[in-house]
Amino acid sequence: MLNFSSDYIKTCHPEILKTLQDSLATTHTGYGTDDICAEAKKRIAEQTGTDPEDIFFVSGGTQTNQLAIDTMLKEYEGVISADTGHVNTHEAGAIEYTGHKVMHVPGHNGLIDAGELKDFVETFYQDGNHEHMVFPGMVYISFPTEYGTLYTKKQLADIAAVCREYHMIFYLDGARLGYGLAADTDVTLRDIAELTDAFYIGGTKVGAMLGEALVFTKHNTPSHFVHRLKKHGALMAKGWIMGAQFETLFRDGLYGRISANAIEKARDLRRGLEKRGFRFWLDSPTNQQFVVLENGFADRLQKEVVLSYWEKADEEHTVYRFATNWATTGEDLDELWKVMDRISAL
Amino acid sequence: MLNFSSDYIKTCHPEILKTLQDSLATTHTGYGTDDICAEAKKRIAEQTGTDPEDIFFVSGGTQTNQLAIDTMLKEYEGVISADTGHVNTHEAGAIEYTGHKVMHVPGHNGLIDAGELKDFVETFYQDGNHEHMVFPGMVYISFPTEYGTLYTKKQLADIAAVCREYHMIFYLDGARLGYGLAADTDVTLRDIAELTDAFYIGGTKVGAMLGEALVFTKHNTPSHFVHRLKKHGALMAKGWIMGAQFETLFRDGLYGRISANAIEKARDLRRGLEKRGFRFWLDSPTNQQFVVLENGFADRLQKEVVLSYWEKADEEHTVYRFATNWATTGEDLDELWKVMDRISAL
Amino acid sequence: MLNFSSDYIKTCHPEILKTLQDSLATTHTGYGTDDICAEAKKRIAEQTGTDPEDIFFVSGGTQTNQLAIDTMLKEYEGVISADTGHVNTHEAGAIEYTGHKVMHVPGHNGLIDAGELKDFVETFYQDGNHEHMVFPGMVYISFPTEYGTLYTKKQLADIAAVCREYHMIFYLDGARLGYGLAADTDVTLRDIAELTDAFYIGGTKVGAMLGEALVFTKHNTPSHFVHRLKKHGALMAKGWIMGAQFETLFRDGLYGRISANAIEKARDLRRGLEKRGFRFWLDSPTNQQFVVLENGFADRLQKEVVLSYWEKADEEHTVYRFATNWATTGEDLDELWKVMDRISAL
Amino acid sequence: MLNFSSDYIKTCHPEILKTLQDSLATTHTGYGTDDICAEAKKRIAEQTGTDPEDIFFVSGGTQTNQLAIDTMLKEYEGVISADTGHVNTHEAGAIEYTGHKVMHVPGHNGLIDAGELKDFVETFYQDGNHEHMVFPGMVYISFPTEYGTLYTKKQLADIAAVCREYHMIFYLDGARLGYGLAADTDVTLRDIAELTDAFYIGGTKVGAMLGEALVFTKHNTPSHFVHRLKKHGALMAKGWIMGAQFETLFRDGLYGRISANAIEKARDLRRGLEKRGFRFWLDSPTNQQFVVLENGFADRLQKEVVLSYWEKADEEHTVYRFATNWATTGEDLDELWKVMDRISAL
Repeated sequence: MLNFSSDYIKTCHPEILKTLQDSLATTHTGYGTDDICAEAKKRIAEQTGTDPEDIFFVSGGTQTNQLAIDTMLKEYEGVISADTGHVNTHEAGAIEYTGHKVMHVPGHNGLIDAGELKDFVETFYQDGNHEHMVFPGMVYISFPTEYGTLYTKKQLADIAAVCREYHMIFYLDGARLGYGLAADTDVTLRDIAELTDAFYIGGTKVGAMLGEALVFTKHNTPSHFVHRLKKHGALMAKGWIMGAQFETLFRDGLYGRISANAIEKARDLRRGLEKRGFRFWLDSPTNQQFVVLENGFADRLQKEVVLSYWEKADEEHTVYRFATNWATTGEDLDELWKVMDRISAL
Repeated sequence: MLNFSSDYIKTCHPEILKTLQDSLATTHTGYGTDDICAEAKKRIAEQTGTDPEDIFFVSGGTQTNQLAIDTMLKEYEGVISADTGHVNTHEAGAIEYTGHKVMHVPGHNGLIDAGELKDFVETFYQDGNHEHMVFPGMVYISFPTEYGTLYTKKQLADIAAVCREYHMIFYLDGARLGYGLAADTDVTLRDIAELTDAFYIGGTKVGAMLGEALVFTKHNTPSHFVHRLKKHGALMAKGWIMGAQFETLFRDGLYGRISANAIEKARDLRRGLEKRGFRFWLDSPTNQQFVVLENGFADRLQKEVVLSYWEKADEEHTVYRFATNWATTGEDLDELWKVMDRISAL
Repeated sequence: MLNFSSDYIKTCHPEILKTLQDSLATTHTGYGTDDICAEAKKRIAEQTGTDPEDIFFVSGGTQTNQLAIDTMLKEYEGVISADTGHVNTHEAGAIEYTGHKVMHVPGHNGLIDAGELKDFVETFYQDGNHEHMVFPGMVYISFPTEYGTLYTKKQLADIAAVCREYHMIFYLDGARLGYGLAADTDVTLRDIAELTDAFYIGGTKVGAMLGEALVFTKHNTPSHFVHRLKKHGALMAKGWIMGAQFETLFRDGLYGRISANAIEKARDLRRGLEKRGFRFWLDSPTNQQFVVLENGFADRLQKEVVLSYWEKADEEHTVYRFATNWATTGEDLDELWKVMDRISAL
Repeated sequence: MLNFSSDYIKTCHPEILKTLQDSLATTHTGYGTDDICAEAKKRIAEQTGTDPEDIFFVSGGTQTNQLAIDTMLKEYEGVISADTGHVNTHEAGAIEYTGHKVMHVPGHNGLIDAGELKDFVETFYQDGNHEHMVFPGMVYISFPTEYGTLYTKKQLADIAAVCREYHMIFYLDGARLGYGLAADTDVTLRDIAELTDAFYIGGTKVGAMLGEALVFTKHNTPSHFVHRLKKHGALMAKGWIMGAQFETLFRDGLYGRISANAIEKARDLRRGLEKRGFRFWLDSPTNQQFVVLENGFADRLQKEVVLSYWEKADEEHTVYRFATNWATTGEDLDELWKVMDRISAL
């Protein structure tokens, strides 16, 4: 069935399976100490200007966020997110489970405003009772955001400056990082490594079977991090399975290439929807497009195309997410138009 | 120095010291199994229509909230509070420390609206992804609220109805319960016991040295609750020290009488401030009054009277809390007027 | 380099890569709701006499143990393990991280004795202060144990009986379950499902790239388990990656067949070592063999063969683990003898 | 009823009630910022050679242990205790609740041996897999121990040396510290402050109504400790209630004097029991005496005297704890002998 519901609907890029196939020939050492992980880390380090020792592979995004936030925060600190941020809404309380509060500032189409962030922190420090409050210890953003939007380099630098001023950690969730970097943006992978204290490069949603690459950018890996991974249940015995994903994705620019495909197909998707007069809920430059559909039409459409329900727009309309991905083809889009036009013509 | 900063500025009602003095003559059994606790629980049970077995004394309000919320919630549940609720703002993340998220709805002068609460929960259940979100398992309110305001019996019943409909626990923080019940209200202690699933009767702020009486109202005490108290570091060896506070306060209506004094003095305070043309930040019927002072005036006043900073009103004005308490005297007020009038005349 | 250090040194059985390759052709739904997971669960359910709804795939053993123990225990309970049990020694405090104590009884070559277990629990309940102690809520064993040893069916039934008598959960860690069942044992997969309340079938160490199948055997899956997986950071977006491992392993008896290879090779390994006069640290019927080596010999050997350091035997001898696995070949063993004989002859 | 069950059976020393009575005359500032706390801290600081800023009052022993251990340990560390240590046995898993493992070495009548401690830590660091194990981050002892026994100054210094060598924190639980220091010992309060990194002076069991004084001895108070107290539910609004206990106990040597009374009465108790031919379970120099009673005799005795069950000695004998305290009188002992002699004569 035609599926535009998300970007984690296909197993992985075929090259990754080939790498795994090749890995059958030999034995590997455990817990991420193997040669494939070493090679993958080396490549990521080179492309981000960081140190291989500060790079770790983790099986999924929630696990990665939970680990980074819990291990980098002090006991008396919480993390600030946009109200719509993933850690605040759709991670099942995984951050609070580790004892840390998620505080929030308004999200503007998912984006945090540096000025509002500064006000939030100022208000905290001006409060005479702030020893009875949770200290703001980290700022969490995602790039792209949960709404597919992107920060400019200037906006990232402004948030980074607020973080430095108030001694907060700047952490970036890059579950869909590839799609953000392949879009129309002035932000580069190196910029992100320079401006943040830690971030992760999403694999699961960008061509890998599983795995995210967590990068501590300032030689600031929390001590005994392997132990902490284990304590969180996140240390995989066969680390090279994840290493192989990233070794492949960061070989010869594959990660960038397949991300670009998703962006190109998203542009075609947007044009096709615009041409047909559909309304967008907001303007997203990346692979997630939020479209307002009339309820009756949506019901019929979903019998033939898998979409993601996003939220209610009004009594008669609902917002749906259409997502392209690294593997989306022109044929997929042609098929979509065929279905949509047929239903529209009813 | 003249002190209107809060209601926990005096040691305790003299009768309590007398009870403790009398307790010197004999020995007592440990961990709340003594006769004084038994008598105190019996009195509270009679006056609330509950069972002595479901009543526990805890040393402070944050400890009590943490215990009640953590032990009554399931692992996948969080608690809903007003955004201004104590557990959401001024308890140092004590709830999140136990792994539970504090969610929030807007506070209207501290009060939750049953309709907005229902919408919040409905939105949760309508969201197709709600298995990835924290389940609303409890509603937390305080009576009076952090702004001194009170729910009517109808408002409590409406919130209780939403709780029942969505299988949420209804928990009431009564840190200042006496002051609420002594104010102009149609709510009684029995109403609270009937409408909520658990609540606590504040001692620390209403005449006791320390101690809050946590009441599980529906024979719903979490299993092995003594163990849970111990695990939270909240089980006192000499339980009768807290028992003596409540045995005294609930003997011959002392709790009600001293609460009434605070309300009477708050009324006098309000009138005196109104007469002098001071502006109130909001209308509070209980012992906490929130007054807008011009900054220069406030600075001078605070050299002679201890007040609580509340929040910034505008560039030139600040909100301060003036609180009366069970021990406030007419002389205290006379003294206050003398100081204020002198400063005003400068 | 020749590697006998563990059973997680090879990527996976080639059939699994083939299943993944086949999965490329189509799209899949997320979070374990896909058809491959459904098929895998159906097969495991049939072969264990359980319900597909009570089966979940988790990425690793520590994660699985942490999840099962944390979600099945009540807040006031801890888990009893052998002192040598994995959760007590080598899981970085992952259980305590969730707030639960690991208590222990003596391990006899890794095995718990039902009589000693009963005594431990009896002593607890006889202690007048036991409300101040951690309640024994679960018994954790592994099959095979960390020393490669196996419980007989009678021994499992005896432990199960103690668990039932004292209302404790019986949980079995099957990280190497295949190797246990393929060895000389009267225990079957169905016996384990019948006697325990929950257990897991290890994939990572028995032919899979990653993944363990957690089975709640008595329709006793903790409520909202998907949420709990997410909260623990254990819910994978592409669930079918793990589903594909188990769909393949439980198709046509592959899991049993490859486990049998490890056992057969372990038997050859044992004979070869015995023939050469090596001493065993204990008698293991499964794929892990614990061998006492003279230190100088061990140093030379490890330049050519990867082994696992286990513990110091005496000043001049050290215990090493030699492990076979699903992929070990006769050629691997021939190579090992060649190296050992050469070094011995020095 | 005659009560020798424990040392927390009487409300408090009358002088403390007098201090509280005196405190009624004025108002006090909240959360431990008051003058009485300041004076109490000043006295303790002077008598221990520490800084008032590093002293905190906490309501009970479990709360204090939980706080000290949780806030001083790093996330990857656990605490080492004697197997019989209070945190390992009778604190309801309060330490594990904060995510930290309690590890243990053998207790010799409650005492840890520095050599065995060193071996334990050495074994940990020699283990090639120790990144998968809980790091030993702190040593917990109690003085006196749970068996009433005492470390010599040399023994404390030896443990302190092991702690320094392996960068572990040395923490001393002084729930009954007064009784230890008043016994026949070469250890002084200053020695303890010098040799440990943190310890607490027990109030609850030595004359106070409630309260323990936690002392960080090396200017090593965890950052934002007031916040951490609040987060643990341990910050009392009326801090001076606890301050008053210690201000009184540390004024004019009261703490030492009343402790000495307990020791003197324990000596008389021991002699009386020896004279009557009773057997001791172990040799305790402090206020807790462990006596082996024939079961029938014990049953009859307990109808008239409250004792603490300790453990089973053999089929016909049981160990009971007889404790004296700061308030025990010669008359109490005379009464005890009368009862025991009468029962013996039956």
